[in-house]
Amino acid sequence: MILDRIQNTGDIKKIPPEEYEQLAGEIREFLIEKVSRTGGHLGANLGVVELTMALHLELDLPKDRLIWDVGHQSYTHKILTGRKEGFDTLRQFGGMSGFPKRHESDCDAFDTGHSSTSLSAGLGLVKARDLQGGSETVCAVIGDGSLTGGMAYEALNNAGKLDSNFIIILNDNEMSISENVGGIPKYLNSIRTSTNYLDLKEGVYNHLVDKPYGESIVTTIRRAKNSVKALMSPGMLFEEMGIVYLGPVDGHNIAAIRRAIREAKRFKRAVLIHVRTKKGKGYEPAERHPARFHGTEPFEIETGLPSHPRTISNWTDIFSTVMCKFGERNEKIVAVTAAMAEGTGLRRFRNKYPDRLFDVGIAEQHAVTFAAGLAVGGLRPIVAIYSSFLQRAYDQILHDVCIQNLPVVFAVDRAGIVGTDGETHQGVFDVSFLCTIPGMTVCAPKNKWELSDMLKFAVNFNGPIAIRYPRGNAYSGLEEYREEIRLGKAEWICREDGIALIALGNMVEIAEEARRILKEKGMHVSLINARFAKPLDREMIREACAGHNLLVTLEDNVLSGGFGEQVLAFLSEQAIEKEVLNIAVPDRFVVHGSVARLRQELGMDAESVAGRVLKKLSMDLPVE
Amino acid sequence: MILDRIQNTGDIKKIPPEEYEQLAGEIREFLIEKVSRTGGHLGANLGVVELTMALHLELDLPKDRLIWDVGHQSYTHKILTGRKEGFDTLRQFGGMSGFPKRHESDCDAFDTGHSSTSLSAGLGLVKARDLQGGSETVCAVIGDGSLTGGMAYEALNNAGKLDSNFIIILNDNEMSISENVGGIPKYLNSIRTSTNYLDLKEGVYNHLVDKPYGESIVTTIRRAKNSVKALMSPGMLFEEMGIVYLGPVDGHNIAAIRRAIREAKRFKRAVLIHVRTKKGKGYEPAERHPARFHGTEPFEIETGLPSHPRTISNWTDIFSTVMCKFGERNEKIVAVTAAMAEGTGLRRFRNKYPDRLFDVGIAEQHAVTFAAGLAVGGLRPIVAIYSSFLQRAYDQILHDVCIQNLPVVFAVDRAGIVGTDGETHQGVFDVSFLCTIPGMTVCAPKNKWELSDMLKFAVNFNGPIAIRYPRGNAYSGLEEYREEIRLGKAEWICREDGIALIALGNMVEIAEEARRILKEKGMHVSLINARFAKPLDREMIREACAGHNLLVTLEDNVLSGGFGEQVLAFLSEQAIEKEVLNIAVPDRFVVHGSVARLRQELGMDAESVAGRVLKKLSMDLPVE
Repeated sequence: MILDRIQNTGDIKKIPPEEYEQLAGEIREFLIEKVSRTGGHLGANLGVVELTMALHLELDLPKDRLIWDVGHQSYTHKILTGRKEGFDTLRQFGGMSGFPKRHESDCDAFDTGHSSTSLSAGLGLVKARDLQGGSETVCAVIGDGSLTGGMAYEALNNAGKLDSNFIIILNDNEMSISENVGGIPKYLNSIRTSTNYLDLKEGVYNHLVDKPYGESIVTTIRRAKNSVKALMSPGMLFEEMGIVYLGPVDGHNIAAIRRAIREAKRFKRAVLIHVRTKKGKGYEPAERHPARFHGTEPFEIETGLPSHPRTISNWTDIFSTVMCKFGERNEKIVAVTAAMAEGTGLRRFRNKYPDRLFDVGIAEQHAVTFAAGLAVGGLRPIVAIYSSFLQRAYDQILHDVCIQNLPVVFAVDRAGIVGTDGETHQGVFDVSFLCTIPGMTVCAPKNKWELSDMLKFAVNFNGPIAIRYPRGNAYSGLEEYREEIRLGKAEWICREDGIALIALGNMVEIAEEARRILKEKGMHVSLINARFAKPLDREMIREACAGHNLLVTLEDNVLSGGFGEQVLAFLSEQAIEKEVLNIAVPDRFVVHGSVARLRQELGMDAESVAGRVLKKLSMDLPVE
Repeated sequence: MILDRIQNTGDIKKIPPEEYEQLAGEIREFLIEKVSRTGGHLGANLGVVELTMALHLELDLPKDRLIWDVGHQSYTHKILTGRKEGFDTLRQFGGMSGFPKRHESDCDAFDTGHSSTSLSAGLGLVKARDLQGGSETVCAVIGDGSLTGGMAYEALNNAGKLDSNFIIILNDNEMSISENVGGIPKYLNSIRTSTNYLDLKEGVYNHLVDKPYGESIVTTIRRAKNSVKALMSPGMLFEEMGIVYLGPVDGHNIAAIRRAIREAKRFKRAVLIHVRTKKGKGYEPAERHPARFHGTEPFEIETGLPSHPRTISNWTDIFSTVMCKFGERNEKIVAVTAAMAEGTGLRRFRNKYPDRLFDVGIAEQHAVTFAAGLAVGGLRPIVAIYSSFLQRAYDQILHDVCIQNLPVVFAVDRAGIVGTDGETHQGVFDVSFLCTIPGMTVCAPKNKWELSDMLKFAVNFNGPIAIRYPRGNAYSGLEEYREEIRLGKAEWICREDGIALIALGNMVEIAEEARRILKEKGMHVSLINARFAKPLDREMIREACAGHNLLVTLEDNVLSGGFGEQVLAFLSEQAIEKEVLNIAVPDRFVVHGSVARLRQELGMDAESVAGRVLKKLSMDLPVE
C-alpha cells in the first residue's frame, strides 16, 4: 500500500510520480470503505482526489494557505495531513469533523461549511500577507455551484483589482448539490468544451513574467490580445472582471493541474484555474447518482444501497407530498429553492409543475427577494431553505418580505439540531432571528399531520409565515390530536396541574416522553403544543400560569430571543410571577454528533428534561 | 410653469417633446428647493430626472412595473405620479417617505431601501406575469454601486436564462455612495468610453424581432457576431452571462433613452440598458460634492452650505478620530467598510493609512468574511457598517467570525432609531441578532469618551466584539463617569434604592433625564450604565435586584431577543422574583420621522419613560 507511506503533511512529496495513479486509487478505496461505514460526503471527495494531490505537491503546507469552499470535499486533504485515523470516527461525537477545522490541523487555513465564503476569506489572507510582507501562497478551491452565491461574486469583484497573487481553483463538476442553474453555469458549460487555453498561453507568458519588465510586457500582450480574445479565450467573463483565467484543465490529470498551479503563481494578480472534475469519480454508484452520494448515510459498497434502508417518512417527505397536493389545488402556489430541490423534497413538485418550481442556485438572498416579487405579482410562493442557510437571508426576510407584509411562506427545513454536519449546519437560530421581525409569524408542527395542516394554514395566510421542521424521521405519535390550526393558538394535549410542559415543534415528542417519566415519579404534568412561537398564545400562557406551579418551555433553538424568552417577556409585561424553566440550546456552538447524543449533551433529551424539571422543583423546596 | 400641468400619473405624456428640457429644469429647481428645506437625498435624484421622464413616457404606469433599487432616487418618479405636495412633508413623521412605498402609490411596484434588491424583485414580477399570462413590462433601475452587491449578481445569474422580457436600467453615475471599487466598476469604466453600440445594433434588430422567425434570426446573427463582438460590444460581461446589453446611452438625452427602452421591449430576454448619468446634475454644489449631497440636511441653495451647521461632534466623528489614533499605535489595525468610507468616518483613516482601509463596495457579506480572513492572517480588522446593513451579514458574523472565535471588531454605526430614512434603515435589530450568536460580545457606549474607551478595549480583545452607537450627536454628559471597561461589567452611575434604571448605550442619556423627572416626583432612582448586552453583568443584576423594588431596562433595540429579555432570562434562571419594566422598541416597524418624534411615539423619550415607570409602580400598588 502506497497509502501507508502517507502519515504526515508533506509525505506525498516523497512519493514518485509514477505511483500517483495508484495512490489516487488507494485513496478512493479508502474513502469509499470509510464513508460506507460512517456516512458522510462522498461524491465531492471522490472528484477531487487528483486535484488535492496536485495542490499538496505544489503547495508548502501549512505555510501556504489552502481554503476549501463549503469544505465537505476536504477528505483527501485530511488524509494527506496526518488525519487518516480520524476517518473511523468521522462526523461522530468527539470524532473528526467532516469539514476543515483550524483546531484539527494547522493545514486547515479557514473553517468552512456554508457555501461561497472561500474567496472572501482568501482575499483576507492575501491582504494580511501583503501588509505583513509574507510570501506564502493563498489558494481557494471553490465549486461551480458555490460560484452562484452572491458573496463569491462580491469577492471576485474585489479580486479583480488585486495587484498580488491569489489562486482560485474553480472545481467545476458541472453541478452543485443538485443541478446548476442560471447564466453563469450555462456560461461555464459553453467554455468546458473549449480548447485548452492554458497551453496557448504558457509559451508566451512562461519566460516573461520573471524577467525585468516581464509583467508589463505580459500586460501589454494581454491588452493586445483582448480584441481577438473572444476567438480563443474561454474565460472572457473572468478576464473582463480583471481576473486571469487559466484552463480548462483536466481535473484528473495531476501533471496538468500542477503545471497550471505553477503558472498561476507567477502572476501578481488573482488567477482562476478552471479545473474540470467528475463528481463520484471511480465509484460507479456515485457517478450515476451524484445527488444521492453528495451526503450519504452508511451504505453497502457492492450495491451502493443504504445499509439501513429508511422505512419511516421524514419531515421532508411530508412536505414534498403536501406541496404536490396543494400545487394541484391552487395554481398560484409556486415554490422557490436555493440549489436544494432534492434536499427540500421539491423535486416531485418540479416533476409535476416544472414551470412553478424556481431553483435559483446557491443564492438565498435572491431566493427570498425573488419570492417577495412573486408575492407582489399575485402568486403564493413557498420558499424552502434549510434553517442554517436561511441565516443568509435575514435582511431580505425583514426588509423585502416583512416590511411589505407579503404572503410568503418559509418552509424552514433542517431546523433544530441536525447532527453530524456540526457547528456550521445546526439550525438552532431561526426561531430567534425570525421572531425579532415585526409582522412575522413563526410556527412549528408537533407531528407529520400537523406539518400538513400548518402548510395548509400558511398558504391561505395573508402575511409572511415560517414553518420550521427538523431533519430526520417525522414524528407520528399524538395522531389523535389534530385541533384546527388558528393563528397564534396553542393546543392543549393534556391538562393536569403541577407542571406545564409547553413545547414547540419537535420538542413536543420529547416533552411527551419527559411527561411519562415525570408521571412515573408521581408528578402531575400538563402538555401543551405551543404551535406558534410568534404570535404567542397569551391566553394559553395565562391559563398555564393559573393552573400550574411551574412552566417549562421546550424548543430546539437557542435560548436567546427564542420561544422561552418570549414567554418570559409576556409574564414580565403582565407582572405575573411564575417559576419558569427554559429548555433550549445553550449559548455555545453545537458540535457534530448524532442528534440523540447531542440532545443528551445539551440536556435536551427526555431523560435530561425530566431530570432538570425535578432539580428545579427540588431547588424550590423550602430547606428543611 | 410646465410642472403645474403635472398633476397625475400619465400627465407627462400630454407634454409636447419640445417642452421636455424645460420640464426637466423645473423638476430640478423643485427638487433643490424642497430638499433644501426638508433635507433628503438630492444628488441621485438630480441625476435621474431625464431617465425618469423617459421611463414614464415609455411605460404605462401603474400597469407596467417600475422598481427603483435602493429607492432614494425616486423623487422625480413621485413628482410624476401625483405626489408633488408630499415634498413639503418629505421624510417627516406622518409625511411622505423618501423611498418608494406601495401604500403611497400603485405606481411604486416594490418597496426598497437597502441596495441591490431590485433585480430579484423584478424577476419575481416577471415570473408572476408570465405564469399568469400578463403583458405588463417589468423594469428595474439599478445603480452601478448597487451592482457590487452579491444579490444583484445572484439575480443577474438567474436573469441570464430568462426567455421573456425584463428590462434592467443600469444607472451608471460612476459612483455609488462614495467611490466605487473593484473589478466590475473598473470594467464599467472601460466601457463608458466606448462607441455607442446601441445604434449599431438597432439597424439589424429593429425590423427582425417582430417578424416570423425574427427572434431566431436575431439569435443566429448574435451568435455569428460573438466571435468578433469583443471588437465592438462594450457589454461583453453581461452578454456572457446571457443578458442582452444595450448602450452606453446618454442619461440626459430623453430621446435616446426612449429609443433604447423601445428596443429593449422587443427582446424575449433580460436586457440591460447602460445609461450614463451625472449625480447632482444641474446643481453645481451637488456636482462638486456628490458625497455630501447624497443624503443632505437642510441647506442654503445659494451656497450649498448646511442651514444649521453642526457644532457638536457626532458619534461617527468620534469613531473617526479614535481610529486614526489607534491606527498610529498599532499597525496591525486595519479597517473594512462596505461603500461607506464617508458615512462611517473612515475617510480620515484612509487618508492616513491608504493600504489599511478596505472599501469592498456594497458587499456586507464579503466585508465580514474578508475581515475574518484578515484576522486569521494576524491582523486586527475593524468592520464599520451601519446597523441595518449589517443584517445582510448575519450568517457571516455567525459562521465565519464567531464559530472560529476570531478577533474582529464590528463598529455598528447608525444603531437604534435613525429617523427620517424610515422602516428600512432603523438599526433596531442588531442587539438581538448579535446576542443570538455564541461567543459574540455586544456593547454600547453611554457617551463619546466611552466610545473611545470601548474601541480601545475592543482592539485588544481576543474574540468577536460589536460596539453599537447611534446616528447623530455624541452625548457628552456624564463625563465624570469613566470607569475602566471590563468584559461584561456594567458601570453604576448612581446608587439609591427604589427604582433601578439599567440602560444600554444611548439610552443612558434618556435614563439620566428620566431619572431627573422621577426624582422630582420624590422617587429614589439608581442609574446603571449596562455597557454590555452580552455577556450580561450577572453580579450587577443581582445587586440591582437586592436593592430595588423595580428594575427598568432601556435599550434602543427591539424587545425580542434584546437586552431586556436577557435580563429576564437571567432572573428566571436564578429564580429571582423581581418586577421588571422593559423599555425597548415595540414589535412593529418604525416609520420615518425625526428621532425625537419617533421616541415619543414609541414611549422611549425621557418623559414617556418616566410616565411608564410611574404607571408600572401604580399598577403594583395594592388596590385600596
